[in-house]
Amino acid sequence: MTSWKVNQLEKQPVLRNPIFIEGLPGIGNVGKVAVDFIIEKLEAKELYEFFSYTMPHSVFVNEENLVELPSIKVYYVKLAKNDLLLLTGDVQPTDEVSSYDFSEKILDIVETFKCKEIVTLGGIGLGEIPKKPKVYATANNSNIVKRYKKLGSFNENLYGVVGPIVGVTGLLLGLADKRKIGAISFLAETYGHPMYLGVKGAREILKILEKRFELGINMNEIDKEIDQLESDLLKRTKDISDVSKQTAIKKLKGKLGGEGIDYIG
Amino acid sequence: MTSWKVNQLEKQPVLRNPIFIEGLPGIGNVGKVAVDFIIEKLEAKELYEFFSYTMPHSVFVNEENLVELPSIKVYYVKLAKNDLLLLTGDVQPTDEVSSYDFSEKILDIVETFKCKEIVTLGGIGLGEIPKKPKVYATANNSNIVKRYKKLGSFNENLYGVVGPIVGVTGLLLGLADKRKIGAISFLAETYGHPMYLGVKGAREILKILEKRFELGINMNEIDKEIDQLESDLLKRTKDISDVSKQTAIKKLKGKLGGEGIDYIG
Amino acid sequence: MTSWKVNQLEKQPVLRNPIFIEGLPGIGNVGKVAVDFIIEKLEAKELYEFFSYTMPHSVFVNEENLVELPSIKVYYVKLAKNDLLLLTGDVQPTDEVSSYDFSEKILDIVETFKCKEIVTLGGIGLGEIPKKPKVYATANNSNIVKRYKKLGSFNENLYGVVGPIVGVTGLLLGLADKRKIGAISFLAETYGHPMYLGVKGAREILKILEKRFELGINMNEIDKEIDQLESDLLKRTKDISDVSKQTAIKKLKGKLGGEGIDYIG
Amino acid sequence: MTSWKVNQLEKQPVLRNPIFIEGLPGIGNVGKVAVDFIIEKLEAKELYEFFSYTMPHSVFVNEENLVELPSIKVYYVKLAKNDLLLLTGDVQPTDEVSSYDFSEKILDIVETFKCKEIVTLGGIGLGEIPKKPKVYATANNSNIVKRYKKLGSFNENLYGVVGPIVGVTGLLLGLADKRKIGAISFLAETYGHPMYLGVKGAREILKILEKRFELGINMNEIDKEIDQLESDLLKRTKDISDVSKQTAIKKLKGKLGGEGIDYIG
Repeated sequence: MTSWKVNQLEKQPVLRNPIFIEGLPGIGNVGKVAVDFIIEKLEAKELYEFFSYTMPHSVFVNEENLVELPSIKVYYVKLAKNDLLLLTGDVQPTDEVSSYDFSEKILDIVETFKCKEIVTLGGIGLGEIPKKPKVYATANNSNIVKRYKKLGSFNENLYGVVGPIVGVTGLLLGLADKRKIGAISFLAETYGHPMYLGVKGAREILKILEKRFELGINMNEIDKEIDQLESDLLKRTKDISDVSKQTAIKKLKGKLGGEGIDYIG
Repeated sequence: MTSWKVNQLEKQPVLRNPIFIEGLPGIGNVGKVAVDFIIEKLEAKELYEFFSYTMPHSVFVNEENLVELPSIKVYYVKLAKNDLLLLTGDVQPTDEVSSYDFSEKILDIVETFKCKEIVTLGGIGLGEIPKKPKVYATANNSNIVKRYKKLGSFNENLYGVVGPIVGVTGLLLGLADKRKIGAISFLAETYGHPMYLGVKGAREILKILEKRFELGINMNEIDKEIDQLESDLLKRTKDISDVSKQTAIKKLKGKLGGEGIDYIG
Repeated sequence: MTSWKVNQLEKQPVLRNPIFIEGLPGIGNVGKVAVDFIIEKLEAKELYEFFSYTMPHSVFVNEENLVELPSIKVYYVKLAKNDLLLLTGDVQPTDEVSSYDFSEKILDIVETFKCKEIVTLGGIGLGEIPKKPKVYATANNSNIVKRYKKLGSFNENLYGVVGPIVGVTGLLLGLADKRKIGAISFLAETYGHPMYLGVKGAREILKILEKRFELGINMNEIDKEIDQLESDLLKRTKDISDVSKQTAIKKLKGKLGGEGIDYIG
Repeated sequence: MTSWKVNQLEKQPVLRNPIFIEGLPGIGNVGKVAVDFIIEKLEAKELYEFFSYTMPHSVFVNEENLVELPSIKVYYVKLAKNDLLLLTGDVQPTDEVSSYDFSEKILDIVETFKCKEIVTLGGIGLGEIPKKPKVYATANNSNIVKRYKKLGSFNENLYGVVGPIVGVTGLLLGLADKRKIGAISFLAETYGHPMYLGVKGAREILKILEKRFELGINMNEIDKEIDQLESDLLKRTKDISDVSKQTAIKKLKGKLGGEGIDYIG
């Protein structure tokens, strides 16, 4: 009775010690920015495409000035230590039933590939731009947190700091537990403004993932790219009532996979 | 499982090189105004009527002071170059599932008639009344844009100018692509005020459609009609808090197919 | 697939030339007040009870300090000229599908009894309290309006005065037309404040119904009752931020069948 | 067709003269606080767990910094006079259909155990913190109110004081009546602020339940605990714009089973 259709885009790959990493849109698009970077830098390949009539009834205009239906996809990449399955998209399920249904579909894939671990990524919205965003972690069992502890760069005391973790980022942890699959979530501080893109927070999360999975991403290179974007964004967010500047931000965000939310019809 | 019923109102016509043009209500009702003009001037005939319990649970009072259920209809007209199928209505589907379902129903009709092309029309809401509204175009493949390029009067760089295109105007392009049907959307600038009717924007779109499909509409005649309406509307929008003026606008909008949104029960 | 259950509360009566009159809650509860008066004064009998899980998930506290589920009922009364079926309730269906479904159920009853006519009642919300509320009429065919014209006390030029007529009051007219059943709606001006009860508007509608159906209601008597209530309400609406006064209004409204909307849990 | 799954967590107990007490989240979480106290002090045992995809699509972070899916559970405890079934949870059903469905499931359990009585608990939100919160009672028949009258510490004139009683707290009374099961609701005054926890109101309700069911709870002990919490809360609610204080409140509320509502993703 699920509303979600899964379309497999290429032959089922054989994956070694696979890890599933989620980065759907959310506060500051922190998770999406991080996962999109990994997909781009490691040239991950498309594997599954998801579609549901419960997705937004709208299309996006892409850089080629052509329209695209909202898209949610799983990519994969083979690495020396752990192969990765990577979930990203333009949108995430919004209503309750659709969000639970989608998360169960993802867990079916996780079980198909016998993934060792699920990692979900997200943001914690603050009232101002954090200079040095902290990363918090929570999980569905304490063992999985221990595996990351030696990497040392996150705070594991999330209780009382935030309320519910809303959406797929949270549900995957809760529902994975019912299937006895370990899952951890990294949430980076970011500015809670709808126009703000949490690139700095995404960078902090990428550092942890680099250490854990030896992605082979040149963090210095990414740092430079992010610094440039961050600096451009800061200039532009000073006056967000200026339409031409907003357009510039939208273009910047477009490059990073973020999208403005305007309405035409 | 669709909630939409299609009622065929007359014998299936034979159409030559048919084009499907959509003009449902939206920002400034730009698309609706343009398509309603074509239907009226070319005396297009009713072909299909759509109905769903997901439509607004309300009725409109018409010029004869009689009530009418909300209506969505497809008309057709035979022309020298391309026969046209024309979609207009009082409302458009509002929720996600209903909007996707409706768009698929429309594409079934498009396939039944082997339409060569889909054209959807809409508005881009600005913060003020545009003196000379620009028209933008986007499509589901670049070939269809090229066909229109020689007509020269639109801007094809929509990326970064707008966010998602919401509703049937956008979905038809995205879903048509899955069926390998070319589809283009023309969006005219208009004033984003709920009481404003985008007649000037509709005129700019009509000029392009006239050139492309040789509708045989006397643009000078339409220009005069629109100038008169525009001038009446401008006078009246100066003070929209005045109830009697609002009534006048509603009557004007009623003639053009627009409707005020009040609630009684 | 409808969500509505109909419970018949007594043996099917034989009705002569029956008319169906709707008075569900709406703006100023004008329709409900009018129909509840008829039910009370003519001692109409309960015939059908409606129930759906799409109704508000809440209970009301009645004058005996006991709870009651929200209720929608059809009553009937036998009169010299036309027998009447009378629809009233605590609530009306709120979402689109539920509202269409309910209206079709009502029309099934209308057809079962071969009702000659449907009359729906409602309010038009104004920005201030009308001294002498005007009554407007609209219908699903012009013949039915003519039958009422000689009664002379309403305005039949509703076009441009109001936008859509929302809810069962409007839908019954539109959907009855599909079944070739004549239906008319009387809408009385009232004050559009959520705490205001449109008793004066209801009185104007009752006058028309009295003339048409010879209800045998002593209008002078009702006038006195209404004048008293109206005067009490006016005193109290002067300061609606005063909680004790609001309580008084709620009690008054409770007597008339209206209800305040507070939330407890 | 219900969306609710019931998971039985241990062997069906034999219960003597059982009473069903509901305390789901609501205004001031009054009912939840009261029932959670009983569960904790009497060491009630988990019996049923409820789950539905219509629950919030989010997870909570618990004191061990691990995530938990939203939970609704029925506990039981054996006592000298009446055994108790106790309903509590992190959330309650929000939409209409889901709320009716859930309440029917609960009544199935009530019938399975042949419960003598249903007691639901809730709050009445005031504009300021009540010094000595009053408790009101309403029921689905007058006999059940009489049984409590000699306990003397509540007001039974709820009519006109509140509008509808929204959610499971109200529905259980209305729907139980259809099954000829007596049900009563106790509603304690509390401060209607979303950050406020109605511990004082809960205490007043607990006093009534203690007298009626001889719970054997040491009210003095609870009084001390509550006084301390109340005093902590009062200090902290003086400046709720201070994030660190809000965190403190969240931690306090977490201990009592309440939860802040923040959004992360």
